[in-house]
Amino acid sequence: MQSDNPTAAILVIGDEILSGRTREGNAHHLAQVLNATGFDLREIRVVSDDQDQIVAAVRALDGSLGGAFDLLFTSGGIGPTHDDITADAVAAAHGTTVVVDAGARALLQARCDRMGLELTPNRLRMARIPVGATLIDNAVSAAPGFSIGQTHVMAGVPEVFRGMVDWLIPKLPGGRPVQSLSVEVRRGESDVAEPLAELAREFSDLSLGSYPFHDERGWGTNLVVRGLDAARVAEAMHAVKQRLAL
Amino acid sequence: MQSDNPTAAILVIGDEILSGRTREGNAHHLAQVLNATGFDLREIRVVSDDQDQIVAAVRALDGSLGGAFDLLFTSGGIGPTHDDITADAVAAAHGTTVVVDAGARALLQARCDRMGLELTPNRLRMARIPVGATLIDNAVSAAPGFSIGQTHVMAGVPEVFRGMVDWLIPKLPGGRPVQSLSVEVRRGESDVAEPLAELAREFSDLSLGSYPFHDERGWGTNLVVRGLDAARVAEAMHAVKQRLAL
Repeated sequence: MQSDNPTAAILVIGDEILSGRTREGNAHHLAQVLNATGFDLREIRVVSDDQDQIVAAVRALDGSLGGAFDLLFTSGGIGPTHDDITADAVAAAHGTTVVVDAGARALLQARCDRMGLELTPNRLRMARIPVGATLIDNAVSAAPGFSIGQTHVMAGVPEVFRGMVDWLIPKLPGGRPVQSLSVEVRRGESDVAEPLAELAREFSDLSLGSYPFHDERGWGTNLVVRGLDAARVAEAMHAVKQRLAL
Repeated sequence: MQSDNPTAAILVIGDEILSGRTREGNAHHLAQVLNATGFDLREIRVVSDDQDQIVAAVRALDGSLGGAFDLLFTSGGIGPTHDDITADAVAAAHGTTVVVDAGARALLQARCDRMGLELTPNRLRMARIPVGATLIDNAVSAAPGFSIGQTHVMAGVPEVFRGMVDWLIPKLPGGRPVQSLSVEVRRGESDVAEPLAELAREFSDLSLGSYPFHDERGWGTNLVVRGLDAARVAEAMHAVKQRLAL
């Protein structure tokens, strides 16, 4: 698919995904948001709560550090416990250190005051932000995320992650949203492969995908046309239906 | 967590995950199987149907090519259509080429004969296997996966992927399965961070994780102890409950 949209990657940090305990959902949510707002998501990585792995991934993915993509979004590892090392690792990747941020501290203090809690050293850990970063707010938790370089660091708890996505994404300069149309055929992928390959050559400015599935009625295939121009996408879907006599 | 288990990575190949159309589930399933059979899953990557991205990821992750992990499992991109380029890309990463494999061809021919179908050029695409690879069978589809070096290439359709996992994993030399115990507390993570950090130091041979969540009743935290020795894991969980007065 031809696109000048900014490219993006997502880095999910958390042993609970790799252990199979939790099924990843934050990257799936953000993938939908990015496609709808004109960012071209090219890679998702899941790594464990390991400093070296996080640093290497941030460097490989954040374009401002010579990495492969324009923007990097992370999820997880910014809580108050011993295994929350994302802030330190992201700071190290960006060649800086972590300090208690006055703005983040004020947010946490206000929340503690409202709830009659003490701002303990552990709670204060969530105000530790890399030098030079700006805060990412959210409506659920007082603990902020942050942006540094082109790395945007968000929480792992789904409700908080979504709150941060809602706050952050409208502030970023996106591109043209992806338009897509799909149709389901009750045939195996092999039966549609040849006409689809021809159509992919004709509509080389678009992305034509076929996604086979298998259910109690046997094999079927979802055909999906994606592109930035709605009229062109509709034209291609019309051609798909005509060619396959749907 | 101390472990001599073989390390592993999963590479998911497919635009449909990155576009947000499909929520990834194969890596989640395999993560559970790997943990239960003594493999240490360290990374999951999702890339698009792009030759360069797949080649780079295979080289970065397959230890037999100088990559970071002992074993690499892939999902997706081995069907009959124009965008199924996984076999070619994996062959390129391993410095070899793809040919129509006699064994794979026989499997497809037998399936076509049974169903009264012709073995068309598109169906035959699914018999294209890197030179030097061995086949991965499954009970659902006639089209096989394959293993080359330490890269194990499987289908993207969940039923077929699971069939290939069922066939493949028992044949691989695994290690000791991970034992885990968990307990839910109705407190925020900040309230358990300090005792948990102490316990993590005491039980440094284990992994102690805390996974906060937020629901209609407010904040809660799941505490998870993981390790290879069941008695030691039980000992640590006993200490967790005692320390937190659960």
